[in-house]
Amino acid sequence: MRLLEEKISKDGRVLSENVLKVDSFLNHRIDPQLMLEIGKEFARIFAGEEITKIVTIESSGIAPAVMAGLQMNVPVIFARKRKSLTLVDDLLTATVYSFTKNETNEISISNKYVDKSDRVLIIDDFLANGEAALGLVKMVQQSGAKVAGIGIVIEKSFQQGAKKLHDLGIRVESLARIASLANGEVTYIKENVEELI
Amino acid sequence: MRLLEEKISKDGRVLSENVLKVDSFLNHRIDPQLMLEIGKEFARIFAGEEITKIVTIESSGIAPAVMAGLQMNVPVIFARKRKSLTLVDDLLTATVYSFTKNETNEISISNKYVDKSDRVLIIDDFLANGEAALGLVKMVQQSGAKVAGIGIVIEKSFQQGAKKLHDLGIRVESLARIASLANGEVTYIKENVEELI
Repeated sequence: MRLLEEKISKDGRVLSENVLKVDSFLNHRIDPQLMLEIGKEFARIFAGEEITKIVTIESSGIAPAVMAGLQMNVPVIFARKRKSLTLVDDLLTATVYSFTKNETNEISISNKYVDKSDRVLIIDDFLANGEAALGLVKMVQQSGAKVAGIGIVIEKSFQQGAKKLHDLGIRVESLARIASLANGEVTYIKENVEELI
Repeated sequence: MRLLEEKISKDGRVLSENVLKVDSFLNHRIDPQLMLEIGKEFARIFAGEEITKIVTIESSGIAPAVMAGLQMNVPVIFARKRKSLTLVDDLLTATVYSFTKNETNEISISNKYVDKSDRVLIIDDFLANGEAALGLVKMVQQSGAKVAGIGIVIEKSFQQGAKKLHDLGIRVESLARIASLANGEVTYIKENVEELI
């Protein structure tokens, strides 16, 4: 998605070979117009998948997921990283290790909101080692629902998450795919390589 | 906001005289169309305030805040309840006690994203005792920015938050104002009482 790549190149900051900081438009300060365009792009990509629900994880997944839900006219459920005292229903849970935060969370969603009749699109802001996405897949599958696809805003393709999800036979679509953050620069994976030859 | 009151009456669950559970459309499962209407309503109400930024707090404030930001064409900054390893900037902070979760959090936003030139609209899903809203006000004021108003989705008017904010001279606009949750029922404050006489 060219608009997103331009935004990353303009406003993203490479903190190390593994860490890209995009808190100026995605995960601290949010650009709502960009989120709308991201939502439209997910809706276009997954139009044939008969999605009935979107599942994401707090907090940075919520904005792109809600915009996708608006475009696809389906509800969005966000997994919680901590339990609320008012979230008293039976829960679907998974354990997720966050490399960014260096901590393990038990993530959960209420089992009222996803069931075996659903075709779920999982959306998240980043795909790196795949811990969060794999946790979300596990929770959705516990409910009996089908994971119809995973939509990622920014994929760090040099880490293992995308491969792990592909190995499970899950369709993964990332709007920006980063080949490398070496030397302080963002290098994207070139799409449609054949067309360029 | 009639649409919101209808949704609360239809899908909200009164768990006690103090607790209204709306996780079926606001703070766990999100109804994106309703969030869009909420965003439009905030944009309409605060149209004259020359808002330049919206500040909210993770996680349930994000969806209504992003929809309001979309309508008002301003960026949204969400305060974090926990520090991220990649959020390394100088921070504005405040301490907030959550009655719902029975814990104290140090909330923070980067001081890069709000400054004294800003007129800030604070948005949150609930206003009860006002802890979160007061923390957000304090952070915004630390930056030198002006708090131009507070937009709340659901106000529990029988608790003290709204009064505390009014006492600070801040404009508070809540889309649903609940007078009581007694006897398992949601009773709203009647607006425009004069017109009904």
